[in-house]
Amino acid sequence: MTGRGRPRRADVDEGVLRAAIELLLERGYAGLSPDEVAERAGVAKTTLYRRWPTKDHLAVAVVARLQDDDEITDSGDIRRDLPAYLEKIAAGLNRMRGAGRTGDDPSAGTVAELVAAAARHPDVGALERDVYARRNALAHALLERAVERGELRADLDVEALFDQLTGALYYRVLITGLPVGRAYAERLVDTALRGAAREKE
Amino acid sequence: MTGRGRPRRADVDEGVLRAAIELLLERGYAGLSPDEVAERAGVAKTTLYRRWPTKDHLAVAVVARLQDDDEITDSGDIRRDLPAYLEKIAAGLNRMRGAGRTGDDPSAGTVAELVAAAARHPDVGALERDVYARRNALAHALLERAVERGELRADLDVEALFDQLTGALYYRVLITGLPVGRAYAERLVDTALRGAAREKE
Repeated sequence: MTGRGRPRRADVDEGVLRAAIELLLERGYAGLSPDEVAERAGVAKTTLYRRWPTKDHLAVAVVARLQDDDEITDSGDIRRDLPAYLEKIAAGLNRMRGAGRTGDDPSAGTVAELVAAAARHPDVGALERDVYARRNALAHALLERAVERGELRADLDVEALFDQLTGALYYRVLITGLPVGRAYAERLVDTALRGAAREKE
Repeated sequence: MTGRGRPRRADVDEGVLRAAIELLLERGYAGLSPDEVAERAGVAKTTLYRRWPTKDHLAVAVVARLQDDDEITDSGDIRRDLPAYLEKIAAGLNRMRGAGRTGDDPSAGTVAELVAAAARHPDVGALERDVYARRNALAHALLERAVERGELRADLDVEALFDQLTGALYYRVLITGLPVGRAYAERLVDTALRGAAREKE
């Protein structure tokens, strides 16, 4: 006995997901082959398929992993933290939109493929919705702390506010094909914080 | 000569699109067969394929046609007109989400398939983005008239506001799977018009 046994499950998962992210960004959704991911990660195909039965399951796991990489910073200043977090979401969307291709294609690319994968398999859809629910709970908590500090109004509908901010980013990427980034994130936060109604005199 | 000639192109288009909408709602995206649409509309397959080379082209034409059916009402009261228009968008999304299926499946269904179709073919994507650009210009004009009347503030970023309102609806349908309808439309408009920042004392 040497003390070396089978790698721990968490290490296997991490290795597979890292290889899957790499391959997805290189080749796009069409080029994400679970067999090749297994080979790059140095795990048996059966190990991979036992954990992620289809390519769509693997793709949702990649999305969850990438979201966990994006920290939500709470500096105590919501006018700074909110554009910063939206900019991270935009960067993630831009990375997926451009996965596996070059040039300025305005289409949603892999972002659209991930949405379609979630719609295609009920269990993948349930996983995907769970990933977003857990993730968005953290963003809602960020907003609630700003309400408690008195930066945001006391009766704010934090869920509606966050849906509007992040929803605008997804809408541009998935539907209108317009660019998203820091400047647009700032426009969104400014518009949402000030409100659209004419100020009372 | 009897005076009856070939039907006008606009009439053929209308008949094909009506048949396509009917079939899409009945069977969902997977069940949208251009051959069956041609048969139901009573036109030659070659006529249909000349105008819409693939099922994806036909599907985008259906989306454009359905959007044209949704009137944007301007009553002169933006607090009434905006929730009403968002409710129409939500109803359209709900109809597509539920196309071809029964029960309370929270997945995006045909909405996701349409997004994927636009991402798959560059020319379909360009058509889809054009449909939304033309449509959203009408919504922007509605908001601009409310600015001119003094209901909304003079320096409002109408594009950012509209992206937030409509984007939240698409985000719920495509990503989080939560319901959209009148009550949610009202929450969105209230949140966006009042603004999230604490009111100045």
